[in-house]
Amino acid sequence: MAETLGRRLAAEAVGSFILFGTVIGSGIMAEALSGGNVAIALLGNTLATGAILFVLIAMIGPVSGAHFNPAVTVVMAQRRELPWRDVLPYVAAQLAGGLLGAFAAQLMFDLPILQASVKARSGIGQWTGEMVATFGLILTIIGTVRHRPNAVPASVALYITAAYWFTSSTSFANPAITIVRSLSNSFAGIAPANVPMFIFAQFAGAAVGALVGRSLFEKSE
Amino acid sequence: MAETLGRRLAAEAVGSFILFGTVIGSGIMAEALSGGNVAIALLGNTLATGAILFVLIAMIGPVSGAHFNPAVTVVMAQRRELPWRDVLPYVAAQLAGGLLGAFAAQLMFDLPILQASVKARSGIGQWTGEMVATFGLILTIIGTVRHRPNAVPASVALYITAAYWFTSSTSFANPAITIVRSLSNSFAGIAPANVPMFIFAQFAGAAVGALVGRSLFEKSE
Amino acid sequence: MAETLGRRLAAEAVGSFILFGTVIGSGIMAEALSGGNVAIALLGNTLATGAILFVLIAMIGPVSGAHFNPAVTVVMAQRRELPWRDVLPYVAAQLAGGLLGAFAAQLMFDLPILQASVKARSGIGQWTGEMVATFGLILTIIGTVRHRPNAVPASVALYITAAYWFTSSTSFANPAITIVRSLSNSFAGIAPANVPMFIFAQFAGAAVGALVGRSLFEKSE
Amino acid sequence: MAETLGRRLAAEAVGSFILFGTVIGSGIMAEALSGGNVAIALLGNTLATGAILFVLIAMIGPVSGAHFNPAVTVVMAQRRELPWRDVLPYVAAQLAGGLLGAFAAQLMFDLPILQASVKARSGIGQWTGEMVATFGLILTIIGTVRHRPNAVPASVALYITAAYWFTSSTSFANPAITIVRSLSNSFAGIAPANVPMFIFAQFAGAAVGALVGRSLFEKSE
Repeated sequence: MAETLGRRLAAEAVGSFILFGTVIGSGIMAEALSGGNVAIALLGNTLATGAILFVLIAMIGPVSGAHFNPAVTVVMAQRRELPWRDVLPYVAAQLAGGLLGAFAAQLMFDLPILQASVKARSGIGQWTGEMVATFGLILTIIGTVRHRPNAVPASVALYITAAYWFTSSTSFANPAITIVRSLSNSFAGIAPANVPMFIFAQFAGAAVGALVGRSLFEKSE
Repeated sequence: MAETLGRRLAAEAVGSFILFGTVIGSGIMAEALSGGNVAIALLGNTLATGAILFVLIAMIGPVSGAHFNPAVTVVMAQRRELPWRDVLPYVAAQLAGGLLGAFAAQLMFDLPILQASVKARSGIGQWTGEMVATFGLILTIIGTVRHRPNAVPASVALYITAAYWFTSSTSFANPAITIVRSLSNSFAGIAPANVPMFIFAQFAGAAVGALVGRSLFEKSE
Repeated sequence: MAETLGRRLAAEAVGSFILFGTVIGSGIMAEALSGGNVAIALLGNTLATGAILFVLIAMIGPVSGAHFNPAVTVVMAQRRELPWRDVLPYVAAQLAGGLLGAFAAQLMFDLPILQASVKARSGIGQWTGEMVATFGLILTIIGTVRHRPNAVPASVALYITAAYWFTSSTSFANPAITIVRSLSNSFAGIAPANVPMFIFAQFAGAAVGALVGRSLFEKSE
Repeated sequence: MAETLGRRLAAEAVGSFILFGTVIGSGIMAEALSGGNVAIALLGNTLATGAILFVLIAMIGPVSGAHFNPAVTVVMAQRRELPWRDVLPYVAAQLAGGLLGAFAAQLMFDLPILQASVKARSGIGQWTGEMVATFGLILTIIGTVRHRPNAVPASVALYITAAYWFTSSTSFANPAITIVRSLSNSFAGIAPANVPMFIFAQFAGAAVGALVGRSLFEKSE
């Protein structure tokens, strides 16, 4: 880590601000414009999310690693690419920046700043969706970060682009964004009561991803 | 081949799991959300498939070659880039991983795990479509894999993106995915009785692609 | 600056001609074809704008910096990457080229060359949108231009792709294009009376972006 | 030119076969599936065309230059990057391959092989559209081919992606494809009587593009 902890936390917070603001803002925009066709709304939401992920990882990756995601932060600590003592500050920065991003999105669209989602997202199918989504995200990061570092921004962006469509839960794959999206009563929201199982499924998927990633991509000594 | 056969087979299975799960999962999602507009459903299905192909080839290419496709595996063996004795294990890994991917997709979307498609895909037009689609896929791989290896993930991803739209069959171009998609009764399915002619057309197109590819791209000695 | 001022101004004018013509032309096309579904129109408008930004920055970046945007030009002067005396000529070239681009778009679509938009774009939400949009644009440029120069064309193109969707104002983020779009009575237009506050918000966002960009990305000495 | 003329002509013919087949095939598919929403049809047509252009230029560029377009071939001859004596054979290969591509598309979609389009495309607006479209295409090629050769496939693909939307004529920008599309009575067609003015406008735009390209991008000696 060439950068100070202070700068890395600022980078995680700014990146999460923009990322979470994009996910929620484009969800609001897409739902408002799509005339009730959910596939069209999801196309707009997907395009915006994939595009901003490329940008944020390309520019913030060299500073803090561009996690914006507690599941990624924990896996990186477990792989010794981040000191364990940095995990809680990273997660706090992700949540703080992300919350401000959600507030900014709701301010931009003239919506109440404080909301609670009523969008139910529950059941075996959805939980399997989150497990698969986070498994694939961690696998993508482990599979590219050492061997093809220049391909990380495009790979993560395109992985999430695909996962918005192939998982039944539209792929939150991120405990911090799950919490923040519970405060947005929109297309992109999730009811607060459904948050804990989503987070559990995400960490379970991340653990499987870390194991499979190690067995597929680690140099054998 | 720097990697052991075991790791290469695991990589083919994991990649086929994610790829086939994406094709079928995004097909189910797109059909469910698109309100009956098939072009919108195909846009979502195309976006997800193209995106995940880039990711999988970027990360798994260096391990196993990232075939996920028996037609590609056979062509690679014929070009002496893979030993012939590895062909059957590769195909078995692709089918096994791909089947699990289809099951995971159906589990995520609360659908019966075991299905049979009733979607008829037959006739001269469709068979020509599969021949042209697989011809172009093999040509794309041969045209980039030696001379512009860094362009392989984007080229194959974008080739399939285009082929979903320019072929009448929406470009299966892969015998393993043809078999697996016969077990998905969705937008992405194919009736089992129509599978053999699709596979025949795919291998015919692959053969033409290998011939044209050699004549256009091989160094003359 | 290896190039003469004359060539750099010509490059800014030609680039602004194509960029502004694309934004307005694709807005007219998208609105005409979309059958009243604004999300579909915005998809077309976004795709065209993001695509042309990549092309123009890739080819014109090495000549003039490829600003096409007075807010970018001022930030670059403040960062000493452009002499202050070049700022007014750059802005004049951007406005002149951009106006011709708008005229060309309206000529192509058989519309009156001289129009005034009646599309109201006002209020706290929209102004916050422009501030956030320009903040993110400047941050993207500062975050990539020195450390990952090869990623600048894709990063700026994808940032604007996302910002069209996550901001309530669909992200003008450019004082010159704001003025020119006030002369297009279309989907992409803005009423002339709403222009000054947009430009004020854009420069305010640019200033914040320059400050945050310096604190995140500057080498500490 | 490291390659023999025979191989270069074969490459131009195969590339034009795939490119023209993609443009027409995806036009037929998009129109058939879009339920009458022309913007959705154009999204599919654009996605397929842009994607295949990247693939074809990445793989065939090193062999023949990947023109697939008589206007590009003439400009390249005028810039001494191709011998004048190769121009007619190149154009013949583009037309022959492209015609076969159109036939293949119509065979795949169970349509009559021989058709004549009745789609009127005429008037000052459309002609201006073709002039602007070809101007920008030639500028894009000249602006990237020497200084950023690795960016050529993405730049040309994204330029055409944008031009499908910002020009009133949806950007044919290619005399060979104009002739071939007059034989396709579909979304992508053009009435034969409207072909000559389109070709005239395309060569006029190409000439302006070559002039502007030289003045912006040539090294001054």
